[in-house]
Amino acid sequence: MSDTQKYHITYNSIHKTVKRLAREVESSDFDPDVTVAIGTGGFIPARILKTFLKKPIFTVGIKYYNDEDNKPRDKPQTIQWIDEVEKKLAGKRILLVDEVDDSRTTLEYCLKELLRHKPKEIAVMVLHNKRKTKRGSFPRGIRRYFVGEEVDDTWICYPWDAVDIDHHDRMV
Amino acid sequence: MSDTQKYHITYNSIHKTVKRLAREVESSDFDPDVTVAIGTGGFIPARILKTFLKKPIFTVGIKYYNDEDNKPRDKPQTIQWIDEVEKKLAGKRILLVDEVDDSRTTLEYCLKELLRHKPKEIAVMVLHNKRKTKRGSFPRGIRRYFVGEEVDDTWICYPWDAVDIDHHDRMV
Repeated sequence: MSDTQKYHITYNSIHKTVKRLAREVESSDFDPDVTVAIGTGGFIPARILKTFLKKPIFTVGIKYYNDEDNKPRDKPQTIQWIDEVEKKLAGKRILLVDEVDDSRTTLEYCLKELLRHKPKEIAVMVLHNKRKTKRGSFPRGIRRYFVGEEVDDTWICYPWDAVDIDHHDRMV
Repeated sequence: MSDTQKYHITYNSIHKTVKRLAREVESSDFDPDVTVAIGTGGFIPARILKTFLKKPIFTVGIKYYNDEDNKPRDKPQTIQWIDEVEKKLAGKRILLVDEVDDSRTTLEYCLKELLRHKPKEIAVMVLHNKRKTKRGSFPRGIRRYFVGEEVDDTWICYPWDAVDIDHHDRMV
């Protein structure tokens, strides 16, 4: 796929999407106690979100793609998980943040893991949801899903992945 | 302090600083195995750095300022640490990343904690080092310190903290 067919997004545009999503959460009846960022795609959205929602961030590191060939692995590999997770998540309202809902496999994996620790509720937030057939699904009990933008099944170029940020911005 | 006296930085400028720092690391003889991001300030620099150095990111959550009054606490409070830290850090070359070296207290705290787990080496990277009397100090054995920019002891406004990112950019 050529660069011009990909969907390029600036940092400032993402910042504004996160701000809008924060307002959406605030005007819902879901008041999260903590944010859980799925690494590494969720790190930047979650950090921006903290400016608006002011909630502590936990991170979980998930590696689903192979660094070498960029192809999906059979199953996600945990890079880092939350210490003493039971104490920290039990009874809490969790907002799980990632950059994109693509095949939904990573989200399903994280949701199932987090649900084991008996949180009060988990809501999901992504910058982008790709309209496509999903391989994963949301477990029962996931009732809230905050999406910055519904997009076609295209290649999304996030600014943090740009080797040349000026070139990236020209592609927007 | 008025907004115009503060030092405002755009996302793209930070992206370029991180790219330059990555090149600096690559041309040094320090080849990190992992990055450890100090949360939440180090999340965004560390995620951008991954684009260039392609190393896994661990995060540690440190809370040093009080959310209510934004004043320093007596000592840092751990929000999240690394699971099974010994296995993951022992013998490793660690690049510890934060946004700013202000009083150096947080860096000292994290370095001391990480050194307990017998890494091979730890290097420090920050976007900004404030020229001021430091309350903390680097423990023995810290030999490499990568700094994006040396700055006066001024108020730095990072883009991810901007409530209004357009206003922020106009202040740059």
